[in-house]
Amino acid sequence: MNPVEPYELRLSEAAERIRSRELSPVELTDSVLGRIEALDERVGAFAAVMGDRAVGAARAAEQEIAGGRYRGPLHGVCIAVKDLLDTAGVPTTSSSRTRADNVPAANAAVVDHLEAAGAVIVGKTHTHEFAYGVITPTTRNPWDLDRIPGGSSGGSGAAVAARMCQGAIGTDTGGSVRIPAAVCGTVGLKPTYGRVSRRGTASLSWSLDHIGPLTGSVRDAALMMDVIAGYDRADPATRDVPVPRHGEGLSAGVENLVLGVPRNYFFDRIDPEVEAAVRAAIGRLEDLGAELREVDLPHPELYMPAEFGILVPEASAYHQETLRKLGDLYTEDVRMFLEAGELMLATDYIRAQRVRTLIQQGWRDMFAGIDAVLAPTLPAVAARAGELAFTWPDGVEEPVINCYVRTSAPGNLTGLPALSVPCGFNSEGLPIGLQIIGRPFAEPTVLRIGAAYETATDWSDRHP
Amino acid sequence: MNPVEPYELRLSEAAERIRSRELSPVELTDSVLGRIEALDERVGAFAAVMGDRAVGAARAAEQEIAGGRYRGPLHGVCIAVKDLLDTAGVPTTSSSRTRADNVPAANAAVVDHLEAAGAVIVGKTHTHEFAYGVITPTTRNPWDLDRIPGGSSGGSGAAVAARMCQGAIGTDTGGSVRIPAAVCGTVGLKPTYGRVSRRGTASLSWSLDHIGPLTGSVRDAALMMDVIAGYDRADPATRDVPVPRHGEGLSAGVENLVLGVPRNYFFDRIDPEVEAAVRAAIGRLEDLGAELREVDLPHPELYMPAEFGILVPEASAYHQETLRKLGDLYTEDVRMFLEAGELMLATDYIRAQRVRTLIQQGWRDMFAGIDAVLAPTLPAVAARAGELAFTWPDGVEEPVINCYVRTSAPGNLTGLPALSVPCGFNSEGLPIGLQIIGRPFAEPTVLRIGAAYETATDWSDRHP
Repeated sequence: MNPVEPYELRLSEAAERIRSRELSPVELTDSVLGRIEALDERVGAFAAVMGDRAVGAARAAEQEIAGGRYRGPLHGVCIAVKDLLDTAGVPTTSSSRTRADNVPAANAAVVDHLEAAGAVIVGKTHTHEFAYGVITPTTRNPWDLDRIPGGSSGGSGAAVAARMCQGAIGTDTGGSVRIPAAVCGTVGLKPTYGRVSRRGTASLSWSLDHIGPLTGSVRDAALMMDVIAGYDRADPATRDVPVPRHGEGLSAGVENLVLGVPRNYFFDRIDPEVEAAVRAAIGRLEDLGAELREVDLPHPELYMPAEFGILVPEASAYHQETLRKLGDLYTEDVRMFLEAGELMLATDYIRAQRVRTLIQQGWRDMFAGIDAVLAPTLPAVAARAGELAFTWPDGVEEPVINCYVRTSAPGNLTGLPALSVPCGFNSEGLPIGLQIIGRPFAEPTVLRIGAAYETATDWSDRHP
Repeated sequence: MNPVEPYELRLSEAAERIRSRELSPVELTDSVLGRIEALDERVGAFAAVMGDRAVGAARAAEQEIAGGRYRGPLHGVCIAVKDLLDTAGVPTTSSSRTRADNVPAANAAVVDHLEAAGAVIVGKTHTHEFAYGVITPTTRNPWDLDRIPGGSSGGSGAAVAARMCQGAIGTDTGGSVRIPAAVCGTVGLKPTYGRVSRRGTASLSWSLDHIGPLTGSVRDAALMMDVIAGYDRADPATRDVPVPRHGEGLSAGVENLVLGVPRNYFFDRIDPEVEAAVRAAIGRLEDLGAELREVDLPHPELYMPAEFGILVPEASAYHQETLRKLGDLYTEDVRMFLEAGELMLATDYIRAQRVRTLIQQGWRDMFAGIDAVLAPTLPAVAARAGELAFTWPDGVEEPVINCYVRTSAPGNLTGLPALSVPCGFNSEGLPIGLQIIGRPFAEPTVLRIGAAYETATDWSDRHP
């Protein structure tokens, strides 16, 4: 691709031009803000565009770089942040009427990290209200405006796909980074649980919440991870594990890697075109030198009960006081979930957490002798706006949320790093995602596998 | 002390004589079994005495040592194990009628470790039913048979105090190692959460349960820790942190250590004789060279709600199926707790876990600049058998369980290592305990402080 407009540049491309002073951060930011101005009325990715602040940050970056003080690959590039993350002085609504007037005094940890790296935050992206859903009804899918962008980080997926930023931040509690990444045709990484601090980020479910990047390429995701990962005293889930340079081994290829291919669960009920694309991607990785090994996922019947048995009451605990005071301001579907969670018993929640431990132990044992698991990110492509359920060939109707969460939840329950990489399109031109799940804190390996696949194909170069 | 009978020997004394072949494990075991035979009808510490198996183990130890294969300080010494821990082929009842016929096929992890170290397991000690209480109604306090031995590891405390073993294993969910240690005048250590595997041990409350030793001296506790500590895949709470030699720095003294003395909470409502003994012990540590620093405990009003808000529903989740099937076989007090826990809401439990995180963060901050906190183990001495509550001078009646748990719970909620060391007797001759709480995995420091105090006094040499 030979971009004519700066906004078309991928993160690493823009970074390289900024570093070499071929491109000014101000020029890039103006181009990106123009793109948003031109397109976002139809896409609806942004809850708030931070035009003045972005231009100010771009000017500061330009001056610093001109003065020889280049901070690194995020310096001067345009990043969008899910509206679940606090931005000091900028409205942060979690796309909820209950927080319409919320202007935080301080940044979320991830926003602090991005700003310290010199990134230009161009705006806040829409989420399914409080991240509690996979539709993101405010936002449309850039590949087909009659379809959903997935969720809950639907605004981030749509913004990256439509090239309204070089990268975006999402959160993932039951797939909310990987779902929009897959249906919007972007890269999306849910890091290891505890790899990225959640300070200053509205919680959906403490023990399942993760923050991760959505980008146009695997390398871009690695560059964002270098900046946002790390220990934080303020998030007790974070672990003091050294942060690697995520991009360093990206071109090492997949020879000597053993990749697990699930015999059960992930391919049990799946759109045939999605299955074909994912199996072709797996074959491609074998061609590239990886050894494939069939694996049996442990306790598959427990994934959904554990995911919802944990998520639903944790969300209700977080929202309990607001639900009492401002219950009418929640959208109907979210309020229903929150009320349901208030009725759940402690013993049921505790048993769900115990089941989760069994699942984690089973996955740990499964990982003996393999480096990663390959799977479809989702069993289906983007649903139509307003479509509540998929109808399978056997007549079974499956709610969209169940369909998308069932292949995502294992990553949340186990806390293992899980990457979604574009792996093709269906006959209607809708993107399909390959999921790569690795060992704890093995983001570099997961990214390396994704990069090997991406380099061998050209799916990431297509755009809507 | 110049013991005339082998059973009177402390663990390290017996170990030294066995190592040097002055004492045979068979001779020691016979003496200990004779002591149990003579005394336990009145004390009631043992749920089961494993006479034949103990003698067999002692003979095997004798032969090994005679053959030059000495395994270490636990080789051939007599250890008692709380009846919550599985012993292969030996009834393991958790002192409950619901498990009257339970004979496990495999040992608990700790029992495996003890046997691998050559210890002679002489029997299973009584617990308050399923560790759910602090009375241990089956057992009496060797210092005054009209008083309780504390609990839930009451049998272990009484057995050590009455010299019916060289050391014993207890479990501690809300103080159940430290409470019997304090009221029976023994040393008791609740290690860091995750330091000792709980595989094969009946659970009271997964996220609060700890296993630890009760012994006649601090050095003896260190020797037992060397054997029972360590990572275990089968207990997901255990951490892969190297196991130190716990006894190595025991004589290093307390110079250069900064010890925190709580301004609030621990001395707020306390028996004056207990307070005097604990303050005298703190003064003694200052005399020995420690620097004292006053500290304010964070969130003291949240300790008891968090402890019971977590413990009660976790216990109910563990017992749910048995309660349905065999409810009538539980004792009245335990069944009442189990039924109450079934009514608790998930949101309340989750909030208790969140509060616990706040408490942990507050304690971590408080530990900046100090090496340990000194406190009373309990606000009172051993209650009389049948006494349900203590009456304080202001007329307030406090249930015995609340009184004992309130100074113990911080150690369980924070997961920090907490040692109880005898620090004197009240005017009725009842033992009093000093509690030493340290940083995560700083058992060597906590033991070193305990040893410095113990060496400077002679409380541990007294016996009933």
